[in-house]
Amino acid sequence: MAGEFDFIRWLRTQQKPSELVPLPAGDDMAVLRWHADDLLLVGVDQVLDGVHFDSAVHSPRAIGRKVMNRNLSDCAAMACLPAAAVVTIAAPRGAGEEYLRELYLGMKEAADVFDCAIIGGDTGSWAGKLAVSVTILGRSGGVSPITRGGAKAGDRIYVTGPLGGSILGRHMTFEPRVALARQLARDHRVTAMIDLSDGLSRDLGHVARESNVSAFVWRSSVPIHEDAIEMRRDGRIPLDHALHDGEDYELLFTTVDAIPAGLAVCIGVIGPANASPVWIGDGSDTVHVPLEPQGWEHSL
Amino acid sequence: MAGEFDFIRWLRTQQKPSELVPLPAGDDMAVLRWHADDLLLVGVDQVLDGVHFDSAVHSPRAIGRKVMNRNLSDCAAMACLPAAAVVTIAAPRGAGEEYLRELYLGMKEAADVFDCAIIGGDTGSWAGKLAVSVTILGRSGGVSPITRGGAKAGDRIYVTGPLGGSILGRHMTFEPRVALARQLARDHRVTAMIDLSDGLSRDLGHVARESNVSAFVWRSSVPIHEDAIEMRRDGRIPLDHALHDGEDYELLFTTVDAIPAGLAVCIGVIGPANASPVWIGDGSDTVHVPLEPQGWEHSL
Repeated sequence: MAGEFDFIRWLRTQQKPSELVPLPAGDDMAVLRWHADDLLLVGVDQVLDGVHFDSAVHSPRAIGRKVMNRNLSDCAAMACLPAAAVVTIAAPRGAGEEYLRELYLGMKEAADVFDCAIIGGDTGSWAGKLAVSVTILGRSGGVSPITRGGAKAGDRIYVTGPLGGSILGRHMTFEPRVALARQLARDHRVTAMIDLSDGLSRDLGHVARESNVSAFVWRSSVPIHEDAIEMRRDGRIPLDHALHDGEDYELLFTTVDAIPAGLAVCIGVIGPANASPVWIGDGSDTVHVPLEPQGWEHSL
Repeated sequence: MAGEFDFIRWLRTQQKPSELVPLPAGDDMAVLRWHADDLLLVGVDQVLDGVHFDSAVHSPRAIGRKVMNRNLSDCAAMACLPAAAVVTIAAPRGAGEEYLRELYLGMKEAADVFDCAIIGGDTGSWAGKLAVSVTILGRSGGVSPITRGGAKAGDRIYVTGPLGGSILGRHMTFEPRVALARQLARDHRVTAMIDLSDGLSRDLGHVARESNVSAFVWRSSVPIHEDAIEMRRDGRIPLDHALHDGEDYELLFTTVDAIPAGLAVCIGVIGPANASPVWIGDGSDTVHVPLEPQGWEHSL
């Protein structure tokens, strides 16, 4: 049976030297030279068997891509450039080195798109299910980080793509909107941004609460993915799927500018702080009702 | 039942603002100002139920302390200063918010000793066992990082404390040797360093291989912990426990200097590259035999 250290030796053959990482991997910690004019951003996100993927259905390559892409999507949400990542894998005993290589190659495939190096990790085996955690380092690279907390009354609310029904497959195959986020943040006055992982209703609530504002969504403006229409078979209307499903990994942002069609779709406006953070209506001022979050939350 | 976002709200009440972290936690990523003259070190380490701890025996507070201390020990191994950490927790469904708070407080207790801020995380619940992963950022703070790769023939080999038998309890309660590592690296010509997590025989092999040298250990010089003597009841002699047990979290280092007694114990010398990386003998040149690693390795 292959051991942890065989796997580490193989991993080291996969790594390329870079200007950012003067010391090669394989020590207790990786060593990076950080550019003085770059803010350092740090995010972390895990995927768990039976929650974020199903190891009986999804390939290790696809699982690896997903966990890395979730972290890259966090970089998009902050409008920063992915720089480096470290990884922990808790593997079911007997998974085998080939399985772990595929998992790693999935992560690497996703990270390589953004020249993001995997610079370290920790692999363990246990009598448990597969859990993969990725920590990502991003750099501001000339664009100030966009938080959830900058939305102001009068801002418009945008999303970068159609929503809902990602469970049909897109939750494994989405592409992080890093380039689009950088373009938006550079060319427009984006005031707040988040990536849609927990569902529009919940994630817009995060933005409204952090910004101390309220958000008004226009029912007919929410772009609905064809997967959400497909999902009607479960008895909920497509709009409900678009509002609540989550794992879309599109960007949700607020801005004082009008954003060119083709980049994003305006779905509502920001108002002053209010008893409920998120409202939905037909666009008139009188018929909005509170939109309660139904998106994903782990119960502890 | 409490939810993920209640827990996140509680976590945010625990955090103090700092000069290093201008943006408060709670966004997609934490934002740090990195000092231009500091190298950035990144390490990651996880603990898994049934492997690194036993959730039926150990308290969440003790588990939290252990996972953070393992990472702080990696900082010691590189002679860097712990700066910030992010965390993922995969919690068994129904563990409860109180359990997770205790886990977090254990991590925070350990990190606070070194003014290391926990700046972000991801908590999920699943139908699996407890897995906790910590990524730690360290800064060089005026001391060049010490790698595993700098040992030279003629260097002496030291360890910072008695070894063996940590399974009796010390593997949960050890104290990371950060201050001692910094002192050694500042005041002496330390050429290579590692923390003893996988066992002396295996960890010294890592140093020998990375440095392209061989290591000769003097049998009678290896400091033996009283726990290793206690462990005799399993039929192996105390020296075997000291050589192979692992999870001592003492420092193993090589240096061209003589280190003052009280700081560390000399256990052997470095020789030129050789067919076997680690040898053991009585100190004469003729009776060394290869010392095969028997320390911890995950089988995959």
